[in-house]
Amino acid sequence: MSRKPKKLLNNPNDVPAEQLEGLIYACGDKLIKVEGYSGVYRNDIKADQVVVVTGGGSGHEPMFAGYVGKGLADAAALGEIFASPSPDIIIETTKAAQKGQGVLFVYGNYAGDNMNFDIAAELLEEEGIQVKTVRVTDDISAAPLSRMSDRRGVAGDMYVLKIAGAAVEAGYDLDKVHEVTAKANFNTRTMGVALGACSIPQTGKFNFELADDELELGMGIHGEPGVRRQKMASADEINGEMIERLCADIELKAGDKVCVTINNLGASTYTELLIANRKVHQVLSECSIQIHDTLIGGYCTSQEMAGYSITIFRLDDELQKLYDMPCDSFAWRK
Amino acid sequence: MSRKPKKLLNNPNDVPAEQLEGLIYACGDKLIKVEGYSGVYRNDIKADQVVVVTGGGSGHEPMFAGYVGKGLADAAALGEIFASPSPDIIIETTKAAQKGQGVLFVYGNYAGDNMNFDIAAELLEEEGIQVKTVRVTDDISAAPLSRMSDRRGVAGDMYVLKIAGAAVEAGYDLDKVHEVTAKANFNTRTMGVALGACSIPQTGKFNFELADDELELGMGIHGEPGVRRQKMASADEINGEMIERLCADIELKAGDKVCVTINNLGASTYTELLIANRKVHQVLSECSIQIHDTLIGGYCTSQEMAGYSITIFRLDDELQKLYDMPCDSFAWRK
Repeated sequence: MSRKPKKLLNNPNDVPAEQLEGLIYACGDKLIKVEGYSGVYRNDIKADQVVVVTGGGSGHEPMFAGYVGKGLADAAALGEIFASPSPDIIIETTKAAQKGQGVLFVYGNYAGDNMNFDIAAELLEEEGIQVKTVRVTDDISAAPLSRMSDRRGVAGDMYVLKIAGAAVEAGYDLDKVHEVTAKANFNTRTMGVALGACSIPQTGKFNFELADDELELGMGIHGEPGVRRQKMASADEINGEMIERLCADIELKAGDKVCVTINNLGASTYTELLIANRKVHQVLSECSIQIHDTLIGGYCTSQEMAGYSITIFRLDDELQKLYDMPCDSFAWRK
Repeated sequence: MSRKPKKLLNNPNDVPAEQLEGLIYACGDKLIKVEGYSGVYRNDIKADQVVVVTGGGSGHEPMFAGYVGKGLADAAALGEIFASPSPDIIIETTKAAQKGQGVLFVYGNYAGDNMNFDIAAELLEEEGIQVKTVRVTDDISAAPLSRMSDRRGVAGDMYVLKIAGAAVEAGYDLDKVHEVTAKANFNTRTMGVALGACSIPQTGKFNFELADDELELGMGIHGEPGVRRQKMASADEINGEMIERLCADIELKAGDKVCVTINNLGASTYTELLIANRKVHQVLSECSIQIHDTLIGGYCTSQEMAGYSITIFRLDDELQKLYDMPCDSFAWRK
């Protein structure tokens, strides 16, 4: 592993700002930049709606700014690569977007994000802006189910944001948006596999190392250690274990209905993602689990990490109704 | 470059079949497999419509099967990785899909595809099925403009298929679908850059080699040689050259309206794609070119090739009307 990261960039320090600019350009006039802060909000927030604010470190594109749009998040506050946005970014982004009907923060459960979003919530409350919070905790590798609130938020953010945004569109008030979004988080579970490491542009170094014949099961999206390293194996063997662990963790039973995402963490081929989806569908079918919808692609990446994650989102009647509502953002159009 | 390809697969010989199965699973009941042949067609072809058949080698997922859906292609015939489908696959796929109103073949301009689709067309004509053909020739690096018909088809396939499928939905007859699809091809230009090579699962070897400090401008999606190799440079420098070459080739002028795709060839980060989009938008704005729509992601990949391509699709009133029509496939929903 003497190889070095190789990316076509300008000044590495300008990466977060330049990529945000590229994303805003791609959205026409739908996204508005928060002046002076690395945040964005959508241009068509209604005057009487609850506002959903997400955010986190950059480097996971199209997460988070790519999920700002009708029926998803209303605004996103963005940090440096793999680093939480500071409280002032969160505060100014929220103020630019909010309409006096309350704000729901939805973000992945990491110490830095928790601290900064909590400080922002406190300061916003002091100014009379009501804030509630759902921390996404979908990564089953990060802690046992008994300590679900210690788990990290990864690709499952997308389902939790989908439900929050749909609940807003459906006219739910803040308490109800919060309640159904928390339920969505409880019904979302993810597990990943890595074949190669990610790197941060500023350091120009890989975050971890994997031997040429090794894979890592359950690593996090910043390279946090997973559940084990092992020699390369067959796709069906690894994907079979991942989907079985997910089904066990969420206690799926025959007749349940789920959505599935096979999320490219960066450098995996579509070939591998599709072959993973084949196994996931086979296992779920054998267990008489109904698959309502399947998404395959780069939804929450980790720079050039070779690998992918599998997310299961269990539906009930309310969640299905909200899931089926349209949404329109850079990352997800439905 | 002693590194070897690293992918999570089962038997490499089963890759085309297994990934197609994974893609069909992802589409619910919208895609039907051609029995005994590696082809698919959509489940809702109308009884009185012209049918658009695409295809080519596998390995470029989500191209080609991912573009089978309402408002895009009606069917796709698929070969082994980086190898044309044989005439019998094309014939059986076409027969399964066609409705007696004529068939338009749309595929990338490669010797193997040309030969096999031409043989298939001839044999289908003998059975009374009318076939016309548009070969996509969007890769400006493959030959000078004076020999446009020698150029390869790459990511631009997506725009040409979009227009063909929309023309069918708009009720055009075969001659008119053929005419407007040929016009779409003439208005589509692509250029790529590679930072790392692709590999074919069966060989387990990279198709070409690039030094750690080198990039290649204009290579093809199977690793065909590009216009030059050079030392790594800044993103703005390379992207600026690419967009300027594209604008010159298609002779864009102030007031023209275009769509843009930044297509991930495999292992590039979203970071790099977004930073490329930033430069493309800046240059086009400076030239008073209007950008109607922008797509960024994996639309025509080349296994794990690190790199991306930029496609420009110039609109006129008819093409814009057809482009704005809805479409619904695995790869593109609008």
